[in-house]
Amino acid sequence: MEVSRSNFKEHVDTVLKDIKTCSFISCDGEFTGIRNDNFRCMPFDTIDERYEKLKQGNMKYLMCQVGLSFFFLESDGSYTVKPYNFYILPSAAASTDDTSNFVCQTSCINFLTSHGFDFNKVFRDGIPFLKPAEESKALDRLMESHEKKQKSTFKSDKLDTPTSIKPVDEKFLQQTVLQIKEFLRTAAHGDKLNLESTNSYRRKLLYGRLGEIFGDTVTVEVMGIGKQRPLIVTKVDAERKKEIELEALNKKLRELEDAVGFSQVVKEISISGKILVGHNMLLDVMYLISQFLAQLPNTYKEFKPMANEIFPKLMDTKVISSTYLFKDNIEFNSLEEMNKILHTSLYQQIDCDYTNADAKFHDAAYDSFVTGKCFAIMSKHIGSQASPPVQDIISNSSLLNPFLNKLFINGLPDISYMNLSGAEAKVDRDHMYHITFPPSWQRSDICQVFYPADIYIKWIDTKSAMVTLQHRSDNKAAVLSGVTVTGVLSLVV
Amino acid sequence: MEVSRSNFKEHVDTVLKDIKTCSFISCDGEFTGIRNDNFRCMPFDTIDERYEKLKQGNMKYLMCQVGLSFFFLESDGSYTVKPYNFYILPSAAASTDDTSNFVCQTSCINFLTSHGFDFNKVFRDGIPFLKPAEESKALDRLMESHEKKQKSTFKSDKLDTPTSIKPVDEKFLQQTVLQIKEFLRTAAHGDKLNLESTNSYRRKLLYGRLGEIFGDTVTVEVMGIGKQRPLIVTKVDAERKKEIELEALNKKLRELEDAVGFSQVVKEISISGKILVGHNMLLDVMYLISQFLAQLPNTYKEFKPMANEIFPKLMDTKVISSTYLFKDNIEFNSLEEMNKILHTSLYQQIDCDYTNADAKFHDAAYDSFVTGKCFAIMSKHIGSQASPPVQDIISNSSLLNPFLNKLFINGLPDISYMNLSGAEAKVDRDHMYHITFPPSWQRSDICQVFYPADIYIKWIDTKSAMVTLQHRSDNKAAVLSGVTVTGVLSLVV
Repeated sequence: MEVSRSNFKEHVDTVLKDIKTCSFISCDGEFTGIRNDNFRCMPFDTIDERYEKLKQGNMKYLMCQVGLSFFFLESDGSYTVKPYNFYILPSAAASTDDTSNFVCQTSCINFLTSHGFDFNKVFRDGIPFLKPAEESKALDRLMESHEKKQKSTFKSDKLDTPTSIKPVDEKFLQQTVLQIKEFLRTAAHGDKLNLESTNSYRRKLLYGRLGEIFGDTVTVEVMGIGKQRPLIVTKVDAERKKEIELEALNKKLRELEDAVGFSQVVKEISISGKILVGHNMLLDVMYLISQFLAQLPNTYKEFKPMANEIFPKLMDTKVISSTYLFKDNIEFNSLEEMNKILHTSLYQQIDCDYTNADAKFHDAAYDSFVTGKCFAIMSKHIGSQASPPVQDIISNSSLLNPFLNKLFINGLPDISYMNLSGAEAKVDRDHMYHITFPPSWQRSDICQVFYPADIYIKWIDTKSAMVTLQHRSDNKAAVLSGVTVTGVLSLVV
Repeated sequence: MEVSRSNFKEHVDTVLKDIKTCSFISCDGEFTGIRNDNFRCMPFDTIDERYEKLKQGNMKYLMCQVGLSFFFLESDGSYTVKPYNFYILPSAAASTDDTSNFVCQTSCINFLTSHGFDFNKVFRDGIPFLKPAEESKALDRLMESHEKKQKSTFKSDKLDTPTSIKPVDEKFLQQTVLQIKEFLRTAAHGDKLNLESTNSYRRKLLYGRLGEIFGDTVTVEVMGIGKQRPLIVTKVDAERKKEIELEALNKKLRELEDAVGFSQVVKEISISGKILVGHNMLLDVMYLISQFLAQLPNTYKEFKPMANEIFPKLMDTKVISSTYLFKDNIEFNSLEEMNKILHTSLYQQIDCDYTNADAKFHDAAYDSFVTGKCFAIMSKHIGSQASPPVQDIISNSSLLNPFLNKLFINGLPDISYMNLSGAEAKVDRDHMYHITFPPSWQRSDICQVFYPADIYIKWIDTKSAMVTLQHRSDNKAAVLSGVTVTGVLSLVV
């Protein structure tokens, strides 16, 4: 199901019900950008550094498509799946640069369009969102402005009106006032008078003047859009004017509810406490929180309890497929390859079909479906290997606990995941060196310096690299004495 | 004419010829964003400050649509006009965040889509661009890498290959080497061998190994896209290998030429020295330079000579229509209103028609057409008011000199333009005050403090404003003594 702003209201109740009643949820996001040059991820990052880099450098992009698949376990062991694509765009009403601006990275845009992504769905019809804290601020502002209006019959006087008005504008004001006085002489309550179209400057002057002269006896409504807009003056009494203001308030409250948009869905997932599955899902989780729910904290230490409270049961299929049960068969665990191998005769299959029209990778709904199905197959396999075998480990078994809240981390040779609900794996980096050298150096120059130790080189750029001793038992002092005497290459401590 | 990447090559020669042969050019840009919260424009900015704010805060957006209209004066005094829309997207090959990332501001996106803007034309088919300095850097890199290849028969060894290889991968390498040896035993020069699809890690291992073993006797080509790609091995001799490398170089040079894209058009406009007309064109000029030609300097002082050299004849219709010849009739000089009034019987009309399908405001081609036509009508009017009257002041008269290189500045009450090719207008701001006060203050509180002086208030936010004395002759010392005694309101110096 493709859901954008124009059909969001129609589907949101079903989606919220699906969240409440499903067995588990899988997700995938597409982004307008992914790389960050200013906070480059390095192979010797600690988990804390990696989190901070992603938080500082990557959250400027937009999660523009969210795929969610709801998996329902049937009595015969098969799953019914409901996959959704949600197209997302900030609301212009979120009025600061921070919340309504987002960055596009051309290579990412090219990647998405080459996979058929339709940016008009995002830009013309994206679903808005509003974090709960922003929602409550907006609500406060609404109520405050409503109360002010109730107290005073005049518009707030913080308007840019000059104390002197040009003769041509003054004439316009006086003519309009006369016209309204004439109208009020014979009009009944509720009668309307159409004024000619005029520009925003004169409309502003008019509001002030009409407030001063007519107070509670008329309302003025602007019609249409564009620079020149007609005005409608309606004769009212004070009671009716209050009613109109209440109607206006209710309209604004409904608009605010609409503006909350997709945040409502993410909030419901959080409240449900259901298992949320992703493949290499760290960025997805960070975006689901920071875009829709709450600002991310600055440190990983603060992020752990926050993520845990919001999504208590995260499952990353990239972590599960890397463990001893699967890694002999799944050599390269990209989503595509993992999916291919899990659908061979090595594994018991699961009966569930993709019902959307477009089944292609890098479409968020399809990727979330594949991720969820892979999770179901791997879970079944894990259950079948237990003694005694367990049929359904997703609903009621501790067999998944070893994978709970462990999120895959890319590109660290010695750390494969972060553990959001427990202690992190201990790593020893005594045998890793961050080195710098002249740009002319090649692999062989570096090998020579570390000779006779066998090394693994991870290039950072043309002037620096990370070197790992392949045998931790090597005499490090001896190796380093060889390094330091060169005088050209240096160790970064 | 709508021009995007897919038909740019087909039209670019005509466009370059149009630039050379037209009477004048008009332009208009559409942007993915316009506001900047961090460098807010204030009503008491100096010209230098305004330039710096725009340069620092606004250049992060993308000029995503450039409208150009070429006006050709015919012998009967009418104009033939060729209006173009160019859709623009950075090249992903411009590989730094600075040049390939751009920001979208939701309110601007909404504005454009509400006027029917098709973002897929930008995102799927935008014309790339490359500044001349970047082009020459890319060229240097290409030539350097080509020369390196010519010198060495091996691939550069700065590859992330481990010094130890997993047994399963080693087996794959050895099998492939055997397969190629077998092939070479009987193959003629030019014969090809298809290898099975494999992933990028193994392809990388393979390049290294094949280089070591087969040197100049084979070439290896990767086919297709995606993670798994087939390889083709071709038997060659050293001479043929050189030829292949030269072909590859030529292909890359052609790609570089394509990547220059729209920069070529802007460069040609600059070289032509033709009159370039815009309406409120400061941002257009800044973007035309900074996006397509060269980085903007930090200060306005440096910007003036640069802009002058690049575009020696700029004409801003917003400046022309604000002058005494027109301002009595053109009260609000937005493009729409100016256009409406210039098409009344007050002015001699110009015979020229819009030939594109979509004639609507906020479409860059149409806006550029309207701007150019307004310029032609105003020029005709200026010529008709001279004594003796001049028929065609655009081609050959000094009557336009008073407007040359004066660009409109928004929102400054006492400065209406910057003068790129001369001294700026002197301004006296002795009677203007930047004040701060408690957020609860209203207009009346401020008026009271300045009483009995008549003031004009320009609100900055709820806690600050700019106050201008309406009568410069007021005794400023007396006014200020009233201000400072309040102790709550304070003057910002």
